Amino acid sequence: MNYKQEAMRLHRKYKGKIAIKAKIKLKTKKDLAVAYTPGVGRVSMAIARNKNLSFKLTNRANTIAIVTDGSAILGLGNIGPEAGMPVMEGKAAIFKEFAAVDAYPLCISSQETEDIVKFCQLIEPSVAGINLEDIAAPQCFTVLEKLEKKLSIPVFHDDQDGTAIVVLAALINALRITKKDIRKLKIVINGAGAAGIAITRLLLSYGSKNILLLDSKGIIYQGRSGLNIYKKQIALKTNKTKQKGDLRFALKNADVFIGVSKAGLVDKEMVRGMNKDSIIFAMANPNPEIYPQDAKNAGAYIVGTGRSDFPNQINNALVFPGIFRGLLDAGVKRVTREIKLNAAIGLANTVKKPNINKILPAANDQKAVYAIARAVKKTNSV
Amino acid sequence: MNYKQEAMRLHRKYKGKIAIKAKIKLKTKKDLAVAYTPGVGRVSMAIARNKNLSFKLTNRANTIAIVTDGSAILGLGNIGPEAGMPVMEGKAAIFKEFAAVDAYPLCISSQETEDIVKFCQLIEPSVAGINLEDIAAPQCFTVLEKLEKKLSIPVFHDDQDGTAIVVLAALINALRITKKDIRKLKIVINGAGAAGIAITRLLLSYGSKNILLLDSKGIIYQGRSGLNIYKKQIALKTNKTKQKGDLRFALKNADVFIGVSKAGLVDKEMVRGMNKDSIIFAMANPNPEIYPQDAKNAGAYIVGTGRSDFPNQINNALVFPGIFRGLLDAGVKRVTREIKLNAAIGLANTVKKPNINKILPAANDQKAVYAIARAVKKTNSV
Repeated sequence: MNYKQEAMRLHRKYKGKIAIKAKIKLKTKKDLAVAYTPGVGRVSMAIARNKNLSFKLTNRANTIAIVTDGSAILGLGNIGPEAGMPVMEGKAAIFKEFAAVDAYPLCISSQETEDIVKFCQLIEPSVAGINLEDIAAPQCFTVLEKLEKKLSIPVFHDDQDGTAIVVLAALINALRITKKDIRKLKIVINGAGAAGIAITRLLLSYGSKNILLLDSKGIIYQGRSGLNIYKKQIALKTNKTKQKGDLRFALKNADVFIGVSKAGLVDKEMVRGMNKDSIIFAMANPNPEIYPQDAKNAGAYIVGTGRSDFPNQINNALVFPGIFRGLLDAGVKRVTREIKLNAAIGLANTVKKPNINKILPAANDQKAVYAIARAVKKTNSV
Repeated sequence: MNYKQEAMRLHRKYKGKIAIKAKIKLKTKKDLAVAYTPGVGRVSMAIARNKNLSFKLTNRANTIAIVTDGSAILGLGNIGPEAGMPVMEGKAAIFKEFAAVDAYPLCISSQETEDIVKFCQLIEPSVAGINLEDIAAPQCFTVLEKLEKKLSIPVFHDDQDGTAIVVLAALINALRITKKDIRKLKIVINGAGAAGIAITRLLLSYGSKNILLLDSKGIIYQGRSGLNIYKKQIALKTNKTKQKGDLRFALKNADVFIGVSKAGLVDKEMVRGMNKDSIIFAMANPNPEIYPQDAKNAGAYIVGTGRSDFPNQINNALVFPGIFRGLLDAGVKRVTREIKLNAAIGLANTVKKPNINKILPAANDQKAVYAIARAVKKTNSV
């Protein structure tokens, strides 16, 4: 099937993918008097006396906002808020169908940090959480940091932590198969945007001791010129021996390659230089850093990509519905490191017997949602 | 029935009144590939090349935002955004059930003019219209004026123009019964907030020559102290003879009283001083300026209130669903004076044979929606 043509046809036919649904009937004058004026006045006054009742008497407790500025839509770049809407509506539809979460897709007209932050602050009383989406790095880090200080509802940037969680889950199962210990592995992460930085942070939290993170200029090391503050922070925690060089150099004797970069950046020769039982997650979309068959031919043992037409799709659609289901059910105020780690472990554990072609559940497997939601709730109840 | 208790019960049980619905199914990997990545990329790129396609390929064309700052919720005052949500959800449910419009209820955390305007600007790419709601006067006028200059989607402040349209419709039918000519009537409007100012403006547009508008300090006249700029503008267009005095004085020999003020401000004596076949719209909520039976006993001929338990309920719920249905269907960019006048005439015309107990359709009568939507569309196509 041609997904692209089919997608155009579907979007033209349905004019988008989500709508509002009334949960109550509004046929009679009595219905109106109870759901609207005058009856609703009592409900409003109850909340005016105790704002927390907005989580009991309105749909707020089950509602989140998906907020993007259109600056980094999928792999398509800065194509603007209007063009971001099909993606955000898709996420909203997945939120509803997979996790019964009500999400408003909101694409905003400014790409200024202060405006994005302001918008989220303004919308806070109406929602129970915010899913930041497709906001370019490094701005996305600043936005998230500011919001975590200002808001008392959880904020989750899916491109950062959704990706990091699904990658860690995939890695946990890959290591179960290869019987390797993360503390002893050399891990190379190519791409130091939202996903690359967040993956690095989460793998460090999980116990990794030897990570090389690369941007388009090569390995990041302490003191390198042209590093933004987020890369500088990472430079302090990775690459202790201050190695310098390109991806080819970095991959020598590596155990794991994680690509969140661009198509075709890895060749067979580079894979051959990696350690035995090497693990390759080539997640550039739509075309990976190296195709699975090429990687296997060069000796890779376990290969994953972002695509559904190869084994081991590593897709954050496995993560975000369950994360928010858990956050909302548990009334979590902040997405902590422990929540992310436990979500990844919970997701990994849904695959009973991982094998080299099955390190994660399929993207449409509802087990993932409930496993992650349970992990989030359990973390928060400790 | 006790509406208040019933309302609390309903809101506790359903936890609010609206939810998101997916318009497409998302069961298989193929469903996901078409509605989300990779298929959705093609749809996003089509919109990136032509932003107007966001009205064809997403739900934007049928989506509006209901925006409030919580500063003037119903007649309850400045009770804040969280407490405003039950009312906004009620409106969203009515929008959906009456007019198939998808509305996001958004209660924001700031009451600064600049923040309200900024929020609406930021959300513009995601919606096809904005319904401002329950924002206190005179700020609501400034917000609306600024937004009409800045946005290219229609903005409608229901407390202003929704109320003005339903009042004009009621008056048109009352005048059909009394066979009076609006150009020859003395009309007294008590309350110079959002509704009072907008009603005055619309009646002037419809041809009224003799209006006295009063605020809590009495009749508004040119040169009176303490007038905000909106009252000053009105002072130039009403009360040509610069009369001064209180409501009792104003009502002498008046033909029409329109109250958007407070309970009990009109007594029988005041009604007795009005002209023959007097018309009284006492719309203070929940308790009117004068109860219908008292007004009738004192000689009033046609009486309406805001309540559903008396004849002639004058409620803007008759107006807003149809207005937005029409605006969205016709792709209107701005709510003009002509649209408002034609909406009122269209609404009035839905009552085939008006009588003193039936000057408007019932609040749950769907005829109103389609009549108003048709009127809006017809106006715009001229």
